[in-house]
Amino acid sequence: MFEPAEVGAKLSKHAFDHLKEGLRLDLVKLQQDLREPGDVPVILVVTGIPGAGVVDTVNLLNTWMDPRWIATTVFDAPTEEERERPPFWRYWRSLPAAGTIGLYLGGWYEETLHQAAVGRLSAKNYAQHLGRIADFERTLSDDGALIVKIWLHLGAQVFKHRRKEHRDADALVGLRPTDTSLGLPGGYNRTIKAAGKMIETTLKPGAPWHIVEGTDDRYRRATVLGLVRTALADHLKLRRKQRKKAEKARKKKTVENTLIAAGTKQRNVLSTLPMRSVTHRAYQKKFHALQRRIYDAHKKAREIGLSTVLAFEGWDAAGKGGVIRRLSYALNARNYKIIPISTPTDEEMAHHYLWRFWRQLQRAGRMTIFDRSWYGRVLVERVDKLIPPDTWTRAYSEINAFEKELCGNGTLLLKFWIHITRKEQLSRFETRADTPTKSWKLTADDWHNRKKWNDYETAVNEMVAQTSTELAPWHLISGNDKHYARIQVLEILAEALDAALKAHGYKAVTVSRSGRGR
Amino acid sequence: MFEPAEVGAKLSKHAFDHLKEGLRLDLVKLQQDLREPGDVPVILVVTGIPGAGVVDTVNLLNTWMDPRWIATTVFDAPTEEERERPPFWRYWRSLPAAGTIGLYLGGWYEETLHQAAVGRLSAKNYAQHLGRIADFERTLSDDGALIVKIWLHLGAQVFKHRRKEHRDADALVGLRPTDTSLGLPGGYNRTIKAAGKMIETTLKPGAPWHIVEGTDDRYRRATVLGLVRTALADHLKLRRKQRKKAEKARKKKTVENTLIAAGTKQRNVLSTLPMRSVTHRAYQKKFHALQRRIYDAHKKAREIGLSTVLAFEGWDAAGKGGVIRRLSYALNARNYKIIPISTPTDEEMAHHYLWRFWRQLQRAGRMTIFDRSWYGRVLVERVDKLIPPDTWTRAYSEINAFEKELCGNGTLLLKFWIHITRKEQLSRFETRADTPTKSWKLTADDWHNRKKWNDYETAVNEMVAQTSTELAPWHLISGNDKHYARIQVLEILAEALDAALKAHGYKAVTVSRSGRGR
Repeated sequence: MFEPAEVGAKLSKHAFDHLKEGLRLDLVKLQQDLREPGDVPVILVVTGIPGAGVVDTVNLLNTWMDPRWIATTVFDAPTEEERERPPFWRYWRSLPAAGTIGLYLGGWYEETLHQAAVGRLSAKNYAQHLGRIADFERTLSDDGALIVKIWLHLGAQVFKHRRKEHRDADALVGLRPTDTSLGLPGGYNRTIKAAGKMIETTLKPGAPWHIVEGTDDRYRRATVLGLVRTALADHLKLRRKQRKKAEKARKKKTVENTLIAAGTKQRNVLSTLPMRSVTHRAYQKKFHALQRRIYDAHKKAREIGLSTVLAFEGWDAAGKGGVIRRLSYALNARNYKIIPISTPTDEEMAHHYLWRFWRQLQRAGRMTIFDRSWYGRVLVERVDKLIPPDTWTRAYSEINAFEKELCGNGTLLLKFWIHITRKEQLSRFETRADTPTKSWKLTADDWHNRKKWNDYETAVNEMVAQTSTELAPWHLISGNDKHYARIQVLEILAEALDAALKAHGYKAVTVSRSGRGR
Repeated sequence: MFEPAEVGAKLSKHAFDHLKEGLRLDLVKLQQDLREPGDVPVILVVTGIPGAGVVDTVNLLNTWMDPRWIATTVFDAPTEEERERPPFWRYWRSLPAAGTIGLYLGGWYEETLHQAAVGRLSAKNYAQHLGRIADFERTLSDDGALIVKIWLHLGAQVFKHRRKEHRDADALVGLRPTDTSLGLPGGYNRTIKAAGKMIETTLKPGAPWHIVEGTDDRYRRATVLGLVRTALADHLKLRRKQRKKAEKARKKKTVENTLIAAGTKQRNVLSTLPMRSVTHRAYQKKFHALQRRIYDAHKKAREIGLSTVLAFEGWDAAGKGGVIRRLSYALNARNYKIIPISTPTDEEMAHHYLWRFWRQLQRAGRMTIFDRSWYGRVLVERVDKLIPPDTWTRAYSEINAFEKELCGNGTLLLKFWIHITRKEQLSRFETRADTPTKSWKLTADDWHNRKKWNDYETAVNEMVAQTSTELAPWHLISGNDKHYARIQVLEILAEALDAALKAHGYKAVTVSRSGRGR
């Protein structure tokens, strides 16, 4: 794989100077073009063999381009806050906004490659991790992001020679403008072998790798900048074409959101959900016992760092808020956070739709409670036709991958759909409208959504069918009786917490973290 | 101070039930009203003696109010990322957006109070820290935020009794729904003494404390919720009055931004700045030597965790971008971040104007380079009358306080104004307009700002006079000769880095943090 980048490719000073100015101006111009309406984020990953010029390349891109729209990210050893979340959390947080370039020195590859090269990862685990990276990149490229990955290469002899040079120089002056003494803990051969596997596994249509020889600085600089220029230019051309096509189609009105009706017929799980109720007395008794049980279990979960994520969805007026309130009353205010999801902010709009959920994940041992969630993508965004059909159909697998990342980290994830009948909803709307102190709760949106009940029903059934995974099944809650709904949710949570604690081999820790508190 | 909260105040169940529903509905209604145009953030701090019901109060507020617009924050022991920034960084990051309520369990008081109570802070340091908290809160309340702070109190006897109860209960069942065994490491008397000092020092018109007796749960709940209700209602009333008044004044056109012209006459430091230049040969020689020197110094700074913050301001086309590019080329891409400042995002608009700068501060040892900065407040926002005069006049002291927080943490802060003459600017604009590859750099804004040269000159002179502190003086850079400007900036930075390293008693550390890298 790397042979073509071991031939000793060079570029004369004359040739480089000839190319230089043009490259530079093109790059800045392309950056401008990236900021057109409907712009996308660009992800440039630069990595490679030490001494092949990774840092110099990143510096060059940084200094040649307009700093307003490019930002460099390097991932050091994970910080405490990062270790307390799923591994991809820090990568998600770092993603560039639409119209800007995220320049990654080493990116999400460095850590893994290093681990593999020094033999700390089994072949199987390495392959699995690379697969997760490929999924991550596909999620981004599917959303329109442009991804370009560059491996800067040196042949074994050149590397050896360069390392000797660096060491001599370091020894001579104590310090010089190089970054390290070109350490390569796993050794050259093992690193190259691991890198080969890495490139092979993560070389995908939307996320190509480019291998560039780093023996000659001028050749390397000109080649990388040329690559970036071509990638940006091709991407912009393609996007313009797509826009034109979409415009044309829009005029002809040939695009119909037909999938809404024509989607594979799902079993109507909602209509078959039995509506049950509970007596006031039974409710009182069960409710307080469950609160106590959850309080105790979550206290233990906090001690051992077992994180919980809850997603609540349901019809308007189904009582999500009421359930969440009762639940939160069973928790220590230090240990949970409620995240109400409504219209995204403009920063959120400029990122992949999952970004806003990633950024909200709380630290280890906490409970993150989403009042509405990432399922908005396949519910309101689908039903109100805010996104084209292929976007929401794709979302099912994106959501499954997201939840797999969450659970893979040991996080307990529970998803609830609080169900009420259409008739019950109407009666609740009417009560709200008639009660002055409650009328603010009822908005035009509620009536609008109610009109689309059938569309929502289709969407919910499909959502449940597509995203009820073994790791994270949907819990359909019978909600016409509010008390019964609360009991169900608390029971499911209590059971799940106990099971997760057991699976984690809970042993009480008696040392308090801060030694004080109230 | 605490005696009135040691009388054993109680509320009957009957009286409480009578108040309850009204309180609750009022609170939710007030939350709605907070979301009017021109809304402000609300900061509620709840703290007090363990066992007085702090957690219960926070839970109650949380569950009674609309969760979409209230979020609870608790500060644990600082995480690694937090320890690597100025102490107030985590408080700033946590602030609620306009129209929402930030509910703080312990807030920025808990840590300090604890330290003082156990005797880990001298009286002087404690007073200083409390003063910084008062400054922080004043900055927020000046900006319109509503701050309410509640101290839940127990008399010594009640506390002792309650602690015994808790311990007995804990011993009996192993666990129960209380948060801690009411530990009070410094002891009751020392805690109360420190709390008295704390309340005394930070009790300010815009940030009042309320002391509430926590002996009886119903009394405490009703009193706190009543207090919050009154504070919100009064605040909304006041704001409506202010809005009406402003509207009236606007109609009468009685408000004139007269301060622009009538500000205290400052020495015109800009006009007296000599314009110097450097030969190409001298530039080449000096420039490379300085780059090398900065590279080495910053490598050492990274090792010992010495952070650097640079703020670049200057006329349009003064060459800020060019200076930053050359400077960044002297740095390892792992260790700096350029933050270009332009229009704020809507999340940023919903916070205090300093919030967006706080959130950008990089970890220990890194260099954060602001291309334009928080000085926009007293430059463009002042000149273009985007904010009223009292807002930007107040900004000087806010900025000085902000920079003091930065430097107090040992961070090296340098501020540069790159100066060119009006004539030189015109010539650069014309060159840009005539060069197709550069014309994108020239915008309508540039011509607009140029017309306001005199207003800007006034603003810059005043800015320099008001914010050149001993800790962070302004460096005025003679910029007609771009080469000369670059040399000056790099020289000042190199000197400052060397001095700071010396002050930190730099000793080379040979162990690399990650053990690899390139």
